[in-house]
Amino acid sequence: MKIHKTAIIEDGAIIGKNVSIGAYSIIGKKSVIGNDVIIQSHCEIGVWYKENETRPVIIGDNSLIRSKSIFYAGSTFGSKLVTGHRVTVREGVKAGKNLQIGTLSDIQGDCEIGDYVRFHSNVHIGRTSKIGNFVWIYPYVVLTNDPTPPSTELISVVVEDFVVIATMSTILPGVKLREGTLVGAHSKVKNDTNPNTLVTGNPATEKGSASKIKLNKSSSESAYPWIRHFHRGYPAEIIKEWKSKFKN
Amino acid sequence: MKIHKTAIIEDGAIIGKNVSIGAYSIIGKKSVIGNDVIIQSHCEIGVWYKENETRPVIIGDNSLIRSKSIFYAGSTFGSKLVTGHRVTVREGVKAGKNLQIGTLSDIQGDCEIGDYVRFHSNVHIGRTSKIGNFVWIYPYVVLTNDPTPPSTELISVVVEDFVVIATMSTILPGVKLREGTLVGAHSKVKNDTNPNTLVTGNPATEKGSASKIKLNKSSSESAYPWIRHFHRGYPAEIIKEWKSKFKN
Amino acid sequence: MKIHKTAIIEDGAIIGKNVSIGAYSIIGKKSVIGNDVIIQSHCEIGVWYKENETRPVIIGDNSLIRSKSIFYAGSTFGSKLVTGHRVTVREGVKAGKNLQIGTLSDIQGDCEIGDYVRFHSNVHIGRTSKIGNFVWIYPYVVLTNDPTPPSTELISVVVEDFVVIATMSTILPGVKLREGTLVGAHSKVKNDTNPNTLVTGNPATEKGSASKIKLNKSSSESAYPWIRHFHRGYPAEIIKEWKSKFKN
Repeated sequence: MKIHKTAIIEDGAIIGKNVSIGAYSIIGKKSVIGNDVIIQSHCEIGVWYKENETRPVIIGDNSLIRSKSIFYAGSTFGSKLVTGHRVTVREGVKAGKNLQIGTLSDIQGDCEIGDYVRFHSNVHIGRTSKIGNFVWIYPYVVLTNDPTPPSTELISVVVEDFVVIATMSTILPGVKLREGTLVGAHSKVKNDTNPNTLVTGNPATEKGSASKIKLNKSSSESAYPWIRHFHRGYPAEIIKEWKSKFKN
Repeated sequence: MKIHKTAIIEDGAIIGKNVSIGAYSIIGKKSVIGNDVIIQSHCEIGVWYKENETRPVIIGDNSLIRSKSIFYAGSTFGSKLVTGHRVTVREGVKAGKNLQIGTLSDIQGDCEIGDYVRFHSNVHIGRTSKIGNFVWIYPYVVLTNDPTPPSTELISVVVEDFVVIATMSTILPGVKLREGTLVGAHSKVKNDTNPNTLVTGNPATEKGSASKIKLNKSSSESAYPWIRHFHRGYPAEIIKEWKSKFKN
Repeated sequence: MKIHKTAIIEDGAIIGKNVSIGAYSIIGKKSVIGNDVIIQSHCEIGVWYKENETRPVIIGDNSLIRSKSIFYAGSTFGSKLVTGHRVTVREGVKAGKNLQIGTLSDIQGDCEIGDYVRFHSNVHIGRTSKIGNFVWIYPYVVLTNDPTPPSTELISVVVEDFVVIATMSTILPGVKLREGTLVGAHSKVKNDTNPNTLVTGNPATEKGSASKIKLNKSSSESAYPWIRHFHRGYPAEIIKEWKSKFKN
């Protein structure tokens, strides 16, 4: 255990084995930190919560939370969570394993997030969003939820497995991005998509199969589904499964 | 008073009754904090200012400033200010009561802001913006000010009462959004709007009266003006006034 | 030297003369701080780095790093660096003199940045971007790099001297913005530009010479090239050179 002498650990916090906590961080009483977790400096974990919140924040084993991040009580993260700096995560998030959350990202709470999801820097995940497995969301993407702002109605965005949302795109309330959809950069998506299609524009329209996009100009290899060629950071057994899908 | 032992209170700071200040926060000498205010951890209030700044920052009674926020000296906020985390507010802001500023929002200074204004996460309010009462601004909205960047000319955006600006929209310098305008998501607004209209697109064009938008698909009730149906968080006397407007 | 008593200076950090370091900041062992530098509170400089990083972060003389900023080891900045609050700068950046980086901006690393470059608030500079001299980039602009996300290919955006990118614009991978290009607000730029042109829209198209834009409605003076009229903050010898270009 390497707890910096300036770190504040509140009574009631549950901290696993071999945990490192950086200077000026605060681990609140509603924290359950797994084994082999690194929490860098100036973080706040399990400190903040609404009055009736009874749930702690649960951080899985082998996680890395970079400096200046804030996790509210009331969310659960599987093993190998990795964050950038200054992420903010509210209550009621249920996330699978190996979630990556980039610097400045803001997860608004009450979201479901699958396994091996990657949020790049500065994404905004609106409350009640539902995100599958192996999803990629790039900088300055916003998942919204209120169809007639301001209102008391929340309609969740649904992002299915293997979806990719490129930078600076807005997904409107209730939109379902079907498996393998590619949303082009700087798009506004108003309608549900078809699986494995490219949609882009403002408003976004379908431009055909994502598989028409080549990996580079001199190649005949399709860039999508991206699991054909991009394997960095995934476990061997998953890569093996992906490869068997595309061996012909 | 609950001042954390690691909080730094500079000589000259004026602090009201029943104020709570979190760990690792700094309350600078140019701070005037009202009664019953909560300032969470890692904040900087009234610490930073330009050389000739003589004004303090004044925080009204019953305010809540969430962690990691920065308020420069030289601005004034009415009672019941509520912020998210990591907000940045520069000098010269004059804001009314019950302003809400979401996480990561950046208020650039010399702005006028009315009563009961709500900024969601990550809005950018350019210098000299003028914002009325009961305005809603959603994530990743930018109010600009320089018509020919870079230049020394600043032309203020004007946002009148009851305006709603949906996520990821840019308002160009000098644009007046008239009372009750609804700006659709992901829009670029170049021209002044007419009251109570919907404008959307890049560039945004007028799509008719905002009142044509129904509250939900199975309803015949208009979603706009939103004060017809959305009352959460406003004082009883204001709601009563709004209801009397729409009772027929 | 004014090192706050709560600042943490790791062994190995090299700190110049007349340096000021604020409360709760951490200066890591891989820091080389020049003379007459101000580092405000809650910063982390040279603390974080990948396992094989041997380079320190080098901060030039007369720099000002505002509070809550994070600089990784492995980057080099010329004299008179000025940052806003909460900037994040990764490893492998090589920047010239008098770089300004606005609040919340996120520089992803391995970038080349010339002299006198100004990033306003909340810009996102993708890895391997190449930026010339006297460039202006406004809030919520993203320079991307991955042509088929996610992939292992990175194609750098190139931004030549005197380019201006207005707010909320996305520059796609590999795009070259030629000298003096003006990118209008809320644009998506897919193609290389011609020098001194205005491009705008989604997708952006060329709208002619930027010099057609007048400085204001009652003026016959061109707003571009902006070095004709905007001189604030540049050294006298540079302004003299610019003036001689446009004296006829």
